[in-house]
Amino acid sequence: MARAGVVLDSGDDAAVLRPAPGVNLVVTADAFVEGAHFLPAWCTARAAGARLAQANLSDLAAMAAEPRWATLSIGARRDADVEDVVAFQAGLADALAAAGAWLVGGNLTAVTGEPWYSLTLLGECERGREWTRRGARPGDLVAVSGHPGRAGAGSRLLGAMGSAAASALELAPLVEAWRAPVARIALARALRRTGAVTAAIDVSDGFVGDLAHICESSGVGVEVDEADWPADPLLERAATALRLTPDVLTFGPSDDYELLLAVEPGGRGDSERAAAEVGVELAFVGRFTAAPGVLTLRTIEGRVRPLGGAGYDHFTGS
Amino acid sequence: MARAGVVLDSGDDAAVLRPAPGVNLVVTADAFVEGAHFLPAWCTARAAGARLAQANLSDLAAMAAEPRWATLSIGARRDADVEDVVAFQAGLADALAAAGAWLVGGNLTAVTGEPWYSLTLLGECERGREWTRRGARPGDLVAVSGHPGRAGAGSRLLGAMGSAAASALELAPLVEAWRAPVARIALARALRRTGAVTAAIDVSDGFVGDLAHICESSGVGVEVDEADWPADPLLERAATALRLTPDVLTFGPSDDYELLLAVEPGGRGDSERAAAEVGVELAFVGRFTAAPGVLTLRTIEGRVRPLGGAGYDHFTGS
Repeated sequence: MARAGVVLDSGDDAAVLRPAPGVNLVVTADAFVEGAHFLPAWCTARAAGARLAQANLSDLAAMAAEPRWATLSIGARRDADVEDVVAFQAGLADALAAAGAWLVGGNLTAVTGEPWYSLTLLGECERGREWTRRGARPGDLVAVSGHPGRAGAGSRLLGAMGSAAASALELAPLVEAWRAPVARIALARALRRTGAVTAAIDVSDGFVGDLAHICESSGVGVEVDEADWPADPLLERAATALRLTPDVLTFGPSDDYELLLAVEPGGRGDSERAAAEVGVELAFVGRFTAAPGVLTLRTIEGRVRPLGGAGYDHFTGS
Repeated sequence: MARAGVVLDSGDDAAVLRPAPGVNLVVTADAFVEGAHFLPAWCTARAAGARLAQANLSDLAAMAAEPRWATLSIGARRDADVEDVVAFQAGLADALAAAGAWLVGGNLTAVTGEPWYSLTLLGECERGREWTRRGARPGDLVAVSGHPGRAGAGSRLLGAMGSAAASALELAPLVEAWRAPVARIALARALRRTGAVTAAIDVSDGFVGDLAHICESSGVGVEVDEADWPADPLLERAATALRLTPDVLTFGPSDDYELLLAVEPGGRGDSERAAAEVGVELAFVGRFTAAPGVLTLRTIEGRVRPLGGAGYDHFTGS
């Protein structure tokens, strides 16, 4: 396959890349450390590599950027199974390629401690059309893709009972949401064309934590409407199994790599059609307000309470 | 100081950067692992950070690129001295800034093993004006900046006798060559304007190893003339102290971050003037030949022998 914009890749002192005319570059970096971000018992090396790619791709989706080029630095143990290192890199490269991006450089170093993988991903975006966290205005709608909280629930299930037990409870989709997320590149592409998105972030800290980031950056507040929240019987069942309230799973820490958006009120229809075209669920769950930093939930019963519960610090997630 | 081309930096999902019109991007990545690339006993955290910056800057110098933007991922121990992590990053950021480049993103992860720092550096180069390893032609001259071998000698001295003993032998400049190298960004800028450079690499594997890389990529051979080699009494004294032949230090493994260049014969004068303008020594030490992979040394006595010694594998450096 032709690798768009790659003039010269590894084998020289550096890679040479040709950006398209009139674009800005969008750059993100993330690293996975074995034992902290993935466990061999939880997923294959290939899946862990794909997951690191998705973590970075998700940041570009949240900026409305097209993924293009990446560098990967690896710290591997001398006694490592070489096939695992190769599988990690292959899983990562395949996930990047599926999104239109290519590994163009990197390096390999021996370590004695835990293995690590550090990825930097470059994307392109038409100049000035980037989505940021800053653009939400009072009255804009809150939209979110998929089912936030599933990845966090999946990792809790893996930690508490393991994969087999989760499957026995028919909770495997939650485990897969953690194990094999797919960044919303296609949704971002479709929504970009509507011009209706005023701010965006990817859900990597959990719905409330990331919504708080938008509110903080944009200087707004938000009211989420429980009645509009997409029902998720799986999350409810997982909450029972884990002896947690469903809210903890739905709103708490979770790296789902879903998109959380501010949308102009007049752009709701276009946005819904754009999401439907790419086959992604997009729910409109609330509205930004003029009360900076005030995050509330309107319950099904019509009561209004702090989102995330009383005492929840929206700006630190704790 | 204004940070050229930085539209939006950390604090959002990704940084947004604005390349200049008509440029290609040049991208390199390198990582330092404590214990492998630097030892706290050998240099301060600040110096180690600066050294990682120089390693990456040197790759861009060897491509004739202008350094612009960087991301840094850090794996730090929970029991680390926070001041060391801050000092490493400050040393790195200051070295980048001195070359016109800026940290625009990154992340910090806790590790239980040895600390590591992974840097990706982006530069810009006028489209099609990049230097590669491929362009050397038979008849082109071999030029090298500074005194290759000094950094390798410095690290051997540190390992064998420590900093104080090396100073006592008045070999401190060799230790400093390892500890505080300066990538040849200014020399690359000056030489770029001459248009006389046909191929380039930075000396990070040692003079012979890197010369072999150019020969391999360009499909040429080379003859180095010992009579033209810049005398280096310090290296000779270090060889005595280390009980090595001077050749091992001069031509063997050493990460000097000097520039090794192929220069059109007619461009020698311009290149010498360009180097003098920026105050960098540039020696013309030989000529590329039409015998692919044949690397020879013409000794002062007029004998011709394999460069690096018989049995030296130029394509692996061993």
